[in-house]
Amino acid sequence: MEIIRPRTLSGFMELLPGKQIQFERMAEILRKTYASYGFAPLDTPIIEDAQILLAKGGGETEKQIYRFQKGDSDLALRFDLTVPLAKYVALHANELAFPFRRFQISKVYRGERAQRGRFREFYQADIDIIGDGKLDILNEAEIPAIIYKVFTGFGLKKFQIRVNNRKILNGFYAMNGLSEKSGDIMRTVDKLDKIGAEKVRVILMEDCGLTGDQADEILKFIAIRGTNAQVLAALEGYAGRNEMFDLGLSELKAVALNLAAFGVPEANFAVDLTIARGLDYYTGTVYETTLLDHPEIGSVCSGGRYDDLAGYYTERKLPGVGISIGLTRLFYVLDEQKLLNDALPTAPADALVLPMGGEPGPAIALAESLRCAGLRVMLYGEQKKFKQKMAYADKLGVPFAVLLGEDEIAAGKCSVKNMRTGEQITVTPAEAAAHIQNVLAANNGPVILEK
Amino acid sequence: MEIIRPRTLSGFMELLPGKQIQFERMAEILRKTYASYGFAPLDTPIIEDAQILLAKGGGETEKQIYRFQKGDSDLALRFDLTVPLAKYVALHANELAFPFRRFQISKVYRGERAQRGRFREFYQADIDIIGDGKLDILNEAEIPAIIYKVFTGFGLKKFQIRVNNRKILNGFYAMNGLSEKSGDIMRTVDKLDKIGAEKVRVILMEDCGLTGDQADEILKFIAIRGTNAQVLAALEGYAGRNEMFDLGLSELKAVALNLAAFGVPEANFAVDLTIARGLDYYTGTVYETTLLDHPEIGSVCSGGRYDDLAGYYTERKLPGVGISIGLTRLFYVLDEQKLLNDALPTAPADALVLPMGGEPGPAIALAESLRCAGLRVMLYGEQKKFKQKMAYADKLGVPFAVLLGEDEIAAGKCSVKNMRTGEQITVTPAEAAAHIQNVLAANNGPVILEK
Repeated sequence: MEIIRPRTLSGFMELLPGKQIQFERMAEILRKTYASYGFAPLDTPIIEDAQILLAKGGGETEKQIYRFQKGDSDLALRFDLTVPLAKYVALHANELAFPFRRFQISKVYRGERAQRGRFREFYQADIDIIGDGKLDILNEAEIPAIIYKVFTGFGLKKFQIRVNNRKILNGFYAMNGLSEKSGDIMRTVDKLDKIGAEKVRVILMEDCGLTGDQADEILKFIAIRGTNAQVLAALEGYAGRNEMFDLGLSELKAVALNLAAFGVPEANFAVDLTIARGLDYYTGTVYETTLLDHPEIGSVCSGGRYDDLAGYYTERKLPGVGISIGLTRLFYVLDEQKLLNDALPTAPADALVLPMGGEPGPAIALAESLRCAGLRVMLYGEQKKFKQKMAYADKLGVPFAVLLGEDEIAAGKCSVKNMRTGEQITVTPAEAAAHIQNVLAANNGPVILEK
Repeated sequence: MEIIRPRTLSGFMELLPGKQIQFERMAEILRKTYASYGFAPLDTPIIEDAQILLAKGGGETEKQIYRFQKGDSDLALRFDLTVPLAKYVALHANELAFPFRRFQISKVYRGERAQRGRFREFYQADIDIIGDGKLDILNEAEIPAIIYKVFTGFGLKKFQIRVNNRKILNGFYAMNGLSEKSGDIMRTVDKLDKIGAEKVRVILMEDCGLTGDQADEILKFIAIRGTNAQVLAALEGYAGRNEMFDLGLSELKAVALNLAAFGVPEANFAVDLTIARGLDYYTGTVYETTLLDHPEIGSVCSGGRYDDLAGYYTERKLPGVGISIGLTRLFYVLDEQKLLNDALPTAPADALVLPMGGEPGPAIALAESLRCAGLRVMLYGEQKKFKQKMAYADKLGVPFAVLLGEDEIAAGKCSVKNMRTGEQITVTPAEAAAHIQNVLAANNGPVILEK
């Protein structure tokens, strides 16, 4: 038979078992945290009608989407979780209770040019809160608390949730007579970190057609820095000149002033007027999250408030707020930066039961009793020499090997070998379970270890 | 703007939030049970090179597969989890420890003709144990224990794991000089339940070309019934005439005789000589699992032993044993038969915190403190009348609403309303958390309720 060389497509993450367990641990923290805030799990199809997914259209999406025919159907793979959510809410609106909160941690597909660290299949971990007609600002205020819980749940301390409000930006441009140029201005201002204030000023004047005074006014505005209280105080100086601005400021204050009640420390939160988010989609609060030691990664959790989720599919007005974490890319970067905590077990089992000859019955019963105590237990069934059995335990990386020979069976005991320390004790199955659980419990650190 | 009618493709399951939570509960039991036997979670791409997926080829697969071009690439969506596993093991063989145990609970795609209860996108929940060159029979003996744990974990008692061994069948045909006709014979015998012994006898003679004596011999063999001990004793009567048969019998005995040690009651297990499994793939123990009250569903968990997992991708001999549960179809049928336990909570939160006016700070802090106690808590932020707030709690189906008005805030308390009984108590936040947890813990039944 001709052998076909096995391969995995480039741009598709396929992990070895140990890494997969590290990935699952992060996904589990996301699931638990999202669920703890009353978000329902959702699981929409990966394939949708192409007409549905491409309702908005647009260049990059049409280029990158995986689209194909099957029979008479024009199908495509979802490229994000927001469009399927819009379809879902429009389709099932009468069966849902609003505000509708859902989380979804699922794969999406983008046929981008293959590139290191860029994925064509990747997980997004999204939450959204959708209102029917209206949605209170309190929902926007809650989002930083959820981001904070997720990242501290991962074990991170050195991160910052950066928040702005699009109404403040839009109101500010309006009070300066620059509403029509606001898109161009925001795209330019977005480059501030990369190219510096001087170049931004040049582009604002030459490409956007602003006067020097207007450009300076903008640079002065986005240069507002300080503690949250200082930034909010500086913004008060602009109040009373534009209704949109005033509304945005009151929203931003509602978000910032409830932080303490939500349990978010001031150190992990910053009002940042340079945050705009590229999309036209957002209309209120916008969020970005950066790892302070790794600004080069960019935002690891972004989102914001939008006024019209599903305008392509329904006349019902469905405003909402949501955030998205690019989990596959985040995992890739954390792994590359050696930030994943390798001290946590990555073996598929807590204990490997090794029968040392004779009938398998006692080893089977021992493995079952350890499982009943809550352990993940693998039973080794191969007829191999002792050395090979121990080599298998080593290669798996199991924390414990549990040996069962004739002597142990006769004594109603088993020998528990700690594979890390080499220490071995001969105890009853119940004592073995308790011992293993104690050692494992002591080794319960965070998923990510900051340096 | 023109509205596009929202729709989900037919053959794609998309659940409402409450049902999704019931589905997740089943998936979680599968994950936990599989992990407890030392299976590592695996997550292979949904898209693979079409050449890889179609290495085996064959009619139905080629017709049903979703296949498409992207750039120069000939791509396809996986139609099962076994072919991607074969590729994975062949590709990563040098980095894996053998026996390699993995579970995967993931979506697969088959463009079947749309039909009630048939899905084009569906979850398979698979485990496999792969050996390098050899794999001990003990692994095959362990599989019924895992099936038993899964189905009792769901809450089922009335199910039967039916086991046979292909070597017994092949040996039996060989001792009757029918080896070359064994494929045809097994396909015919497989229809026994549907068409009865008399018609099977006719087909065996007319279509398969057997003599009346040969047909009778086969019917007599597959009619062997009784307790496992009785069936094994009857099989002993055929021993000593064919090596393959004898090997199969010793394997079947190893599986059956270790059941007690594995904790599988005799009532949930049957040696059944009519089980053959359609695929040519299997070479040893084969498994089917039926719900005794619902034979019309067919097997809900099937699999077996194979000698060559990845022959298309590597010259390395990789024997294994595995089972697969068609989770989407199983869930659909259980739901249709009204077997899902509707008494279990399906709300996205355990408690809905309802602020009754004033500043949101105290309600936020209350929600956070209930979360810290381990509850899933939704904070209601909308400015609505009391009646509308309670209507939302009703529609969500939350077990508890926690009301916080000026009086409660002043007293450092909150009012906890049990939405099922209507009972309401005013207590401290800590007492509220304990009370809610107690009520929830008492309502902790199985996922499936047998009638």
